[in-house]
Amino acid sequence: MNTKEIVDCAMGRIKSDIVLLNGQLVNVYTKEIIEADIAISKDRIVHVGKNTNDLIGENTRVIDIEESIICPGLIESHVHIESSMLTLSRFTEAIVPHGTTTAVIDPHELANVAGMEGLEILVNEARNSPISYLIELPSCVPSLPGFETPGSTIDSEQVKQLIIRDEFFALAEMMNYPGVFLGLEEVMTKIDATKKAGKIIEGHAPLLKEKELQAYVAAGISSDHEATTFEEVLEKLRLGMKLQVREGSFAKDLGNILQNLDESKIDTRNILIASDDRNPIDLIEKGHLNYTYRKMVQLGMNPIEAIQMMTLNTATHLGLEKEIGGIAPGKRADIIVVNNLEEFNIKMVFAKGEVLFENGKLAFPIQEKKFPDFILDTLSKLEVPTIEKLMIKVNSQNYVNVRVIGVSEHSLITEKLEAELQVQDTFVIPDIENDILPVVVLNRHTKEEKIGKGFVKGLGLKHGAIASTVAHDSHQLICTGSNYELMLKAIEALKESHGGLVVVTIDNITILPLKFAGIMSTGKIEDVVRLNKELNNALNTLNPAISESFMALAFLALPVIPHLKITDHGLIDVDAFEKVNPIIEE
Amino acid sequence: MNTKEIVDCAMGRIKSDIVLLNGQLVNVYTKEIIEADIAISKDRIVHVGKNTNDLIGENTRVIDIEESIICPGLIESHVHIESSMLTLSRFTEAIVPHGTTTAVIDPHELANVAGMEGLEILVNEARNSPISYLIELPSCVPSLPGFETPGSTIDSEQVKQLIIRDEFFALAEMMNYPGVFLGLEEVMTKIDATKKAGKIIEGHAPLLKEKELQAYVAAGISSDHEATTFEEVLEKLRLGMKLQVREGSFAKDLGNILQNLDESKIDTRNILIASDDRNPIDLIEKGHLNYTYRKMVQLGMNPIEAIQMMTLNTATHLGLEKEIGGIAPGKRADIIVVNNLEEFNIKMVFAKGEVLFENGKLAFPIQEKKFPDFILDTLSKLEVPTIEKLMIKVNSQNYVNVRVIGVSEHSLITEKLEAELQVQDTFVIPDIENDILPVVVLNRHTKEEKIGKGFVKGLGLKHGAIASTVAHDSHQLICTGSNYELMLKAIEALKESHGGLVVVTIDNITILPLKFAGIMSTGKIEDVVRLNKELNNALNTLNPAISESFMALAFLALPVIPHLKITDHGLIDVDAFEKVNPIIEE
Repeated sequence: MNTKEIVDCAMGRIKSDIVLLNGQLVNVYTKEIIEADIAISKDRIVHVGKNTNDLIGENTRVIDIEESIICPGLIESHVHIESSMLTLSRFTEAIVPHGTTTAVIDPHELANVAGMEGLEILVNEARNSPISYLIELPSCVPSLPGFETPGSTIDSEQVKQLIIRDEFFALAEMMNYPGVFLGLEEVMTKIDATKKAGKIIEGHAPLLKEKELQAYVAAGISSDHEATTFEEVLEKLRLGMKLQVREGSFAKDLGNILQNLDESKIDTRNILIASDDRNPIDLIEKGHLNYTYRKMVQLGMNPIEAIQMMTLNTATHLGLEKEIGGIAPGKRADIIVVNNLEEFNIKMVFAKGEVLFENGKLAFPIQEKKFPDFILDTLSKLEVPTIEKLMIKVNSQNYVNVRVIGVSEHSLITEKLEAELQVQDTFVIPDIENDILPVVVLNRHTKEEKIGKGFVKGLGLKHGAIASTVAHDSHQLICTGSNYELMLKAIEALKESHGGLVVVTIDNITILPLKFAGIMSTGKIEDVVRLNKELNNALNTLNPAISESFMALAFLALPVIPHLKITDHGLIDVDAFEKVNPIIEE
Repeated sequence: MNTKEIVDCAMGRIKSDIVLLNGQLVNVYTKEIIEADIAISKDRIVHVGKNTNDLIGENTRVIDIEESIICPGLIESHVHIESSMLTLSRFTEAIVPHGTTTAVIDPHELANVAGMEGLEILVNEARNSPISYLIELPSCVPSLPGFETPGSTIDSEQVKQLIIRDEFFALAEMMNYPGVFLGLEEVMTKIDATKKAGKIIEGHAPLLKEKELQAYVAAGISSDHEATTFEEVLEKLRLGMKLQVREGSFAKDLGNILQNLDESKIDTRNILIASDDRNPIDLIEKGHLNYTYRKMVQLGMNPIEAIQMMTLNTATHLGLEKEIGGIAPGKRADIIVVNNLEEFNIKMVFAKGEVLFENGKLAFPIQEKKFPDFILDTLSKLEVPTIEKLMIKVNSQNYVNVRVIGVSEHSLITEKLEAELQVQDTFVIPDIENDILPVVVLNRHTKEEKIGKGFVKGLGLKHGAIASTVAHDSHQLICTGSNYELMLKAIEALKESHGGLVVVTIDNITILPLKFAGIMSTGKIEDVVRLNKELNNALNTLNPAISESFMALAFLALPVIPHLKITDHGLIDVDAFEKVNPIIEE
């Protein structure tokens, strides 16, 4: 709407489309609850007060919300939608019932697999979405150049070209924080290009502090979602950073941080909320930011302050305060109606002035998306290898000492272990009794046959194999198991399903297909959750030693987290940043 | 500095220019006072903490500030520098000692006299200023087209052309609020052009409320500095407006508003501070925002919250939070050092990394500015009229009834009065006994002789005349007095001095010359203040009935404030928006 039109609507010269009567408005600007009616014309709020009489015409939909709470649509400040295993449209269907009307997404995983071609698909989906997606340009693709076969590379030259495009809202989390404080040219170029484009640079700076943190902030990086303690939060807030307190499916920092926040009496305007990742089961069973809100209030936080952290504070950080983050005349009509501030049950969701959710149901048309063929078979270049190619061959000996990746519960950090293994017919034999399992990573991004091989301890799988094409960040195919035959079956199954997660037992193959780039399903969240549960049931028949075997497996391949990892290039000693031989030479 | 350079400075690979040791930092982000050292490299802050050792080299200036308070440079959110009667460079000299390092200025008065040619002079001066000026494009020049001879016009077509220029930061206060809610095309076009340029639109909406206020806000106008009561503040804040609490030389709204603010416990992030106008005497004797700060604290406000209102809150409103408003790595080094939070005596001022004030003295070179000739004689087109032309001629009668502008203390609003006056030789004779004085407004902007004539009651001048080329908003020449001879002398004096304020008694002519556009001096503040005091002394010998005769006179000419005003076109009935005859026809 141009200004004339919106003014005419506000004055009642043009009647409103929708009027909500008798609301209790969460005023995030003043931190009050006030009585208000809301008038909506097209995608805009045109009145917030008690003078809507003149605005109601015969075609106005008038809804008496009977003292329900009116709240700005919730804004997700940082999420990788890939962890939901859903495409953008399916993700939208999943989060709208929870009151999210804007989400800042970093499509880092998709970019690692499918590069700009993949991102274009996302950009197109976002453009037609009933809610708002702010798509960030991934800053670190691949995470560690030279140590794996990347699905794609976005270098500083490409960042220069891409960051000026309207579709890219910001430069996504700058994970290469050493590259920042060391002043590496490639990193500096990406940052300078983003600043020149007038866009924000999001951060990722776990445990960074003192001089290095100051350099990171001085570089112009404005946010962080990696702080896990209040002390870390406070140091970063004091430097003017926007602090995204994270409550995801994996990392749950809220409790730790909120505990001390209230006592501190500090200004909370620079605190935002981020999910970072949300798995499909949590999304359907717990919710999204509405779940986080409830948890915050249970932890004793002031409800309006909690809402500010997922609305106004985020909008201000994003430079979108004129558009979203609060309910005021002229702002976009992104509004949720909830029963009360304790239960926070979502009754209605409006985005861009449209009703998207009411009476417990989605109210927008769901279209089956057509995707280009290439994105639905990103394993096409992978040839299933012979079983011998999965095995490690040595010169004739009876025993060898090998390097072993040590996995433990609830940690992405692995240990560097060693073990003595038998050799038979020049092949190294895993020691299942002692939980020394083979693990392989297969290149699926190019035609070049590349198989990284090693051993892992801690997963405890005894009678089966698991494999996944979700393997951070390049998302090659990673596989482990109690014997090579079952592992080969797992690899074959993923090749056939065009990617996904699979559990292979002696009798059964249970698969969660993830056709879209090998990391996301094209199905609905209900189907993904059902298949996910079946997969978990199958996994449990293998008596795994840890609770999140697939999560642990996925992160075995990420060579930027200490200490020993594996890519399609082989074992990587992350501390030394060098490739190492699984066999320890005497 | 590019990112590499700033990172190198933050890491100590390049040593800092200045390090402040042992400060007590006002952290506006967290609302805390914390111990901190500050390192500055070129125009940037590169460290805020206690790890400056590595940053100090042999050429670093290290200053132990011995527990003094470190505070972000103060930001003036809205001021017309014309009311200081100083040119921009002289204004800078006047405000730097008070800790102001950024000022948003609306050169509305200058634009009314000298249009874009005048603004270009200002833009050039601002470009070379040691502090930062954000120049707004005046939105309402002239204030009421058609009722006076304007010095200049900035119409919507010109706004379209000008608002895209980098030099114009925003569209200045949209005073034509009826034009907004009525949806007038000219106003709508200006607003749409500003939005398209991605710039902000500042507001001016005295007493506007309910539906009309909502329309004004819906139009995208984001601020207001005209609220005078807490109720008005609250209504506007609730609609998401940025509320500039005004404490100027004329309008003083702080006390009224703060009284209720504290109790209300509302969020104060959207409250800013503005001076609007600051006369030279107040500037030198009381100060600028530092004076307002002291008053706020005396009124019981939390000192950090007061500072937020003149730093971070303003920067956020302006969309400049990345640059200014707080002290953090990467931000511009706009810093003030004050003795303590009670007295708030300014010890040092840094702007863009340069020391501008220390040891009680300005520390930057003061250059005499050269201005183009035309701006130093904007009365060149005015011919001094004959005395008869100042008088009102009627057909032969003995008495006539006349309309009289009624002036009262401390109000810009005038009354519509009437009086019976004698006629001698066809000329209407003022009634000095009853304080019915003649008042005339002479066109000085074009060669056309235009003299508006009328009568005024309430000024109480008995034995002299005063005249001024400060006459809002078009700044024609306005003159009143106890007889036409002295008035003519006053007009002649102003013609000769190229503008200013003048007091003429039977024996003396006392003048404050304002050569620059007829509204500002090119002299130093000390000289302007001295001349101003001499002028006031001369004025006092006339026993004026009100305390601010020149202020009252200046606003007699502003035809947008009720009820009866006078321009060079004649008397204006502001309520009817029509020209009226000073003589009431029977």
